[in-house]
Amino acid sequence: MKVGGRSYRTIWLNADGWGVDVIDQRWLPHEFRIATLRNVGDAAMAIRDMWVRGAPLIGVTAAYGVALATREDPSDAALDAAWERLHATRPTAINLRWALDAVRAHLRPLDPAKRAAAAYAQAAEIAGEDVKINRAIGHNGLAIIRSLAAKKRPGEPVNILTHCNAGWLATVDYGTATAPIYLAMEEGLPVHVYVDETRPRNQGASLTAWEFVNHGASHTLVVDNAGGHLMQHGAVDLVIVGTDRTTAYGDVCNKIGTYLKALAARDNGVPFYVALPSPTIDWTVRDGVSEIPIEERSADEVHFVQGLGDDGKVSRVRISPKGSPAANPAFDVTPARLVTGLITERGIAKASPEGLKALFPERV
Amino acid sequence: MKVGGRSYRTIWLNADGWGVDVIDQRWLPHEFRIATLRNVGDAAMAIRDMWVRGAPLIGVTAAYGVALATREDPSDAALDAAWERLHATRPTAINLRWALDAVRAHLRPLDPAKRAAAAYAQAAEIAGEDVKINRAIGHNGLAIIRSLAAKKRPGEPVNILTHCNAGWLATVDYGTATAPIYLAMEEGLPVHVYVDETRPRNQGASLTAWEFVNHGASHTLVVDNAGGHLMQHGAVDLVIVGTDRTTAYGDVCNKIGTYLKALAARDNGVPFYVALPSPTIDWTVRDGVSEIPIEERSADEVHFVQGLGDDGKVSRVRISPKGSPAANPAFDVTPARLVTGLITERGIAKASPEGLKALFPERV
Repeated sequence: MKVGGRSYRTIWLNADGWGVDVIDQRWLPHEFRIATLRNVGDAAMAIRDMWVRGAPLIGVTAAYGVALATREDPSDAALDAAWERLHATRPTAINLRWALDAVRAHLRPLDPAKRAAAAYAQAAEIAGEDVKINRAIGHNGLAIIRSLAAKKRPGEPVNILTHCNAGWLATVDYGTATAPIYLAMEEGLPVHVYVDETRPRNQGASLTAWEFVNHGASHTLVVDNAGGHLMQHGAVDLVIVGTDRTTAYGDVCNKIGTYLKALAARDNGVPFYVALPSPTIDWTVRDGVSEIPIEERSADEVHFVQGLGDDGKVSRVRISPKGSPAANPAFDVTPARLVTGLITERGIAKASPEGLKALFPERV
Repeated sequence: MKVGGRSYRTIWLNADGWGVDVIDQRWLPHEFRIATLRNVGDAAMAIRDMWVRGAPLIGVTAAYGVALATREDPSDAALDAAWERLHATRPTAINLRWALDAVRAHLRPLDPAKRAAAAYAQAAEIAGEDVKINRAIGHNGLAIIRSLAAKKRPGEPVNILTHCNAGWLATVDYGTATAPIYLAMEEGLPVHVYVDETRPRNQGASLTAWEFVNHGASHTLVVDNAGGHLMQHGAVDLVIVGTDRTTAYGDVCNKIGTYLKALAARDNGVPFYVALPSPTIDWTVRDGVSEIPIEERSADEVHFVQGLGDDGKVSRVRISPKGSPAANPAFDVTPARLVTGLITERGIAKASPEGLKALFPERV
């Protein structure tokens, strides 16, 4: 997608042919910085400290991380160590493990001397596959936007609400929840997006809004508290969010607060869709609420807010009194009963075991 | 309630006998500043710019504002001008109009020479009445906490979630939603409160958490997105919030985001109570969603977050990219069907016309 008029992806090979360039997303929306990862430690740090985030992009970064490790030491032991090190960075992200398993399984039978080249090739293939998947998700979600647009007066936009950033910054390109939006724009359909701020890390305000400013998408930033009110007043036609992990029964584990928007959508008859690449489905889990462990992140993310100071520097302010404890669960689970449909690269599935089995019969 | 070990109210007569001292809440939780209001312009500014906030405290401040105006000019014209000026400050707060009407009706028949003294006396009476009402709300709400505590193991706290600040800082003392909590503490019942941050103005993080730190109440600060997840996992026994305006049919207009918590409470079988002094009831309104105009505040409240910088100064940071528009509805309406009960000074009413009529038969 566009940044300052130029097309970018979130991860690409450096001009030197082996370093891995990523957008260091910690400085967005205030500074557009590119970082080069040069070893597995860099890749692990980039994932753990959220230079890159979003389930698909984490998977691709991990794959490149194995490539960087293998380049230094192609032994079985180094391969296993890289797997462990990268896997430990983000426990909730199912794509991370999926990508690591795929790369290791591909490299293991190879002559160590051939592993590095094979790892780079496979990481690039996973990245390319992600773009293909997202475009397919976009086409499938676009059908929903088209049918809502058909009920509007000419020029009246379809109003979409999204939470967190399931945008192109969370993937290699296009995004998941945003892919239908970007494809609608390509088609000239008028769309307008309400962007949830998404405390505590503000990925909506800092990443999704930044994507939309740069790509020219019509949008309005709102605090996380506002979505219910907007839906009560008919301001939202459709909710589309992403997911970090989807269960075989259609429960959706996504950024904290997603569940509240799903409840509001249900209460107001607003369709609630979840966009996801199929590697995000965890076929081993049924009941998301009881089975998915929720990452508890640092209380400092609640106490402090980062932004651009009046002095033009990125800094943080403390919003709470000293002595107040804080809790910071990073995700919640939206039960399948609140999900209108799962937009996958193969089509739109009902959020149920039957719905998912119908689209992915090979997983049964 | 206590601040640094000493008991305070939010508004009191200055030692000079006519100035009006208030806690300038804009600097909390980082600085405890007291401001003295010396004319009606000061009072209007204090309400409009939220030095003081909360429906009951706005009402008392407005009453003192009329007293300050009358002290300078006791004429009918000045009285009407003060009414207009103070009423224009916050359109949603029903107590504001109630207090202004009460003071004007009381002063109008009096000899102008006697009006200033009468206005001060009446403002003090409204303040005293607020404290009495809040203690009564506290006693009525305490019964709910007692019954929940009876089901707990010894020492295990009753877990309460609250949104925004309906604490003593929103009233003259005790608060509305917090009164049952403070009375439970007086009684030695173990309670623990989840405090919603309450974006965009962060009244939970900056005011409610500050109250609890200073008064020694066990609490945990969470982002607004977290409450649904906490309820899904049985971490919340009870929700208590305040309200700026309650309809004759039991709909509750409160800080933006309240409706989302009510939905989560309903979905998880958690009782959802609203604490309110009866002047907050607007007997002229039935359907809150369609009839109550919602204050749209400055987009800057969404774009910027105020807090304590690493340099020890209160400053603000911008969290959004330049070029992103923002919307900022300040309140939402929780329909009566989601409200377990209305905790008033006369008892707990069902959130229905019949429930309210039974407690307030004189209003029928």
